[in-house]
This record gives sequence, C-alpha cells and structure tokens, in this order.
Amino acid sequence: MSAVPPPFPTPQESVDHSELLQLGTALGPDEPCLRADAARNRARLLEAAARLVAERGADAVTMEAVAAEARVGKGTVFRRFGDRTGLLTALLDHSEKKFQAAFLSGPPPLGPGAPPVERLRAFGCAMLRRSTDELELQLAAEPGASRRFTAPPRRVLRHHVAMLLRQVVPEADCELLSHTLMGQLDPALIHHLTRQCGIPLARLEDAWVDLVNRVTGTAPAR
Amino acid sequence: MSAVPPPFPTPQESVDHSELLQLGTALGPDEPCLRADAARNRARLLEAAARLVAERGADAVTMEAVAAEARVGKGTVFRRFGDRTGLLTALLDHSEKKFQAAFLSGPPPLGPGAPPVERLRAFGCAMLRRSTDELELQLAAEPGASRRFTAPPRRVLRHHVAMLLRQVVPEADCELLSHTLMGQLDPALIHHLTRQCGIPLARLEDAWVDLVNRVTGTAPAR
Repeated sequence: MSAVPPPFPTPQESVDHSELLQLGTALGPDEPCLRADAARNRARLLEAAARLVAERGADAVTMEAVAAEARVGKGTVFRRFGDRTGLLTALLDHSEKKFQAAFLSGPPPLGPGAPPVERLRAFGCAMLRRSTDELELQLAAEPGASRRFTAPPRRVLRHHVAMLLRQVVPEADCELLSHTLMGQLDPALIHHLTRQCGIPLARLEDAWVDLVNRVTGTAPAR
Repeated sequence: MSAVPPPFPTPQESVDHSELLQLGTALGPDEPCLRADAARNRARLLEAAARLVAERGADAVTMEAVAAEARVGKGTVFRRFGDRTGLLTALLDHSEKKFQAAFLSGPPPLGPGAPPVERLRAFGCAMLRRSTDELELQLAAEPGASRRFTAPPRRVLRHHVAMLLRQVVPEADCELLSHTLMGQLDPALIHHLTRQCGIPLARLEDAWVDLVNRVTGTAPAR
C-alpha cells in the first residue's frame, strides 16, 4: 500500500501475522452478512452498551438499559443478542476486534512501523488502559482456570507479544516469556492492584515499561 | 540460635519476616489444642489424603477413600473435617505450612543462608515442582478473580518474593515485580503449559531461572 516498506517486516513477523489473523477470524466475523442498516443498528447498540460500561460499570448493562441508551425498543435488543450474556459477549468481541485492528494495522508505536521493543511497551500500556476501562466486563467474562489460557482472544494477544519478543530477544524462550508478560496484564491482577490496593494506572504503566526493559535488556528511548 | 549469623539478615528481611509470620498465623494454626493422639490421627489422615492426590489426582480424594487409605472408620474422617471441602482445605493448609517452613527456616538455597537471587531461583523451582504435584488440588481451590490475589497463602508467597527482590534490585518497583514473578507460578498457567501444551517441567524451571536472571540483571552461578 505504502511506498515506504515498514522497517521491521521480518519473515517471522509475516508468518505470525497470518496466524494471528486466523485466530482473529476464529473469533467470528462481525456478522458480515447483515444488511447495511442492520449492521449499523447492531454497531449502535454495542456503542450504547460500551458507554454504559464506561459510565456505570458492567452491572448497568441490561437489555432495557441498552435499549433506552440507544433509543430503540427493547425487542430490538433481544432480537439482536438473544440475552444479556449474548450482549456482553458481543460487546467484548467488538472491543477485542477494535484493539486487534489497532495493534495489527493501526498507527505506530502500537501498530507496525515502530521498533518491536517500542511496540511491546506501547502494547502493555494500551492493554492496561483498556482493561481499566472495561474491568468489570472482562472480569465477568473471565473463563474458568482450565480455559483461561486457551480462549481465542487471549491467544491472539499472547501470540502478538511472543512475535515481538522473538524479534528483540531471539535467544530467549519467547513462548514462555510471553506468558510472563501477559500475566502482568491479567484483568484479575489489574483489578486487585487498582481497586483493592489503590495503585494508580500510571504506576502500572511504569512497571510495564520497566519489565519490558529488564526482560529485553533494553533501556527506553526517551 | 546458630553461632554463625546468616549472611543476609538485612533490616528489611527481619521486618518482612515478621509480617510473613503474621500472615502465616492468619492461615490458622494446625489445631494446636488437639490432644497428642488426636493431632497424630489428623496428620495421618492428611498424609493419606496427600498420597491419594499424588497417586490418583484430587478427584480421588473422597471421605471414604481417605478413611480406607488411612485404615480408620469413615466416621473418624467426617468428625475431623466435616465434609470433603473441609478436608481439601485442610490438605492445602497442611501443604502450604510445610512449604512456608521450607522457605522461611529450611536449608538453603530455598531457606535463609543463600544469596537472595539464589533463593529466588530455588523458590520458583520448588513452587513449580509443588504445583505440578498438587495441580488438581490447587485448581479446585482457586478463588474467584476478585479474591485470587488477597487469599492469605498467596500473599505469604508473594511477600517472600518481594522481600528477596528488594535485596537484589532495590531500585525497582519490587511490589509490582513480585506480582510478575508470581504470575509465572500461577497454578492455572502451570496447568495450561504442562497439561494442555505438553511442556515438560524442566523447561518451566529453565524459564523461571532465565526470568529471574533477566529481571535482576544477574547471571546464574554455575
């Protein structure tokens, strides 16, 4: 597309990207067969639900509240999402896809075009901000212990971290190291640190950047 | 007690140790008021239950199976533990206390007397081996997301990691870094890596040692 090739298109990156995209597809497309007006309607409902989460927490997301917020009849919300669980699942998928698009093809440093270590730093900070915004929603949707690490959205994120790590510290066990880094971004941990311990988000971001620097043996570019 | 003082008795260590011991006490003593024969009886039942877990998994631990394994009547097991949940809780407490004793006052490098970075390396490897042995039990007892990080046993372990980190990298945010390290030892993650991905324990131990080296900027003494 662009006349200037991105500075870090290594073979590993392209291989892993296709894997990422397959995983992304496994999440299910955003119902591409909907008629344009139905798709707009669905997106409007999801944006309304996301506003409710941001303003009043996940508990406030009922079928009735979303209908009122989007100014449609309650029946429309039920026809579109079936029940509240269907609505919350669709909401997380929607948010997941926006975030995937940002780190797979958005502007640097989160997206391609920045050095991989800068992308790693940006990825964690973006994840921390996103989790803080959607904490109740993510906690409510947390799978049980035996499925927590196999759920497709988490696999997409971890593969991305592993792909970046392999470009920075190819000698390390990047598969396991990516789990370590992802652990720092676990919604249950973020909940504990921010809500139960009162640690401000900025300190979590600093700790993420410091962790990336220590693990990769790099100092931040300031 | 000993004529030779341990090589790393820093002020932080003694402060944190007393905190650890308080947390340890919060777990509840091993029913010290029991008559000696009753205490022996209880320990025998717990050892029988631990053997069942090791040989046949947590699902095999029923009141009946423990009674048979310890060669006592079923009524004895019910009188002592109330129900299966009570038995499993007592079993984890028992194992937790043995492990705490090992890292608080056992022989080095897990216990005091070794350099803190060696104790960190030994701690993770011991945790990994212990979790592999007791995986079903630990998963069955995993608290929900909002209580996972506040449960007393986990706090004891994390405080210990933070105390060792402060001696090695006092300039770092050791509170948050200790959460990162503990994440690598999370039973749900160990379950995923060993059972779902088939990664051998030795590779997890290598990855732990490598992580400690990276985070502390040290190379292992070989």
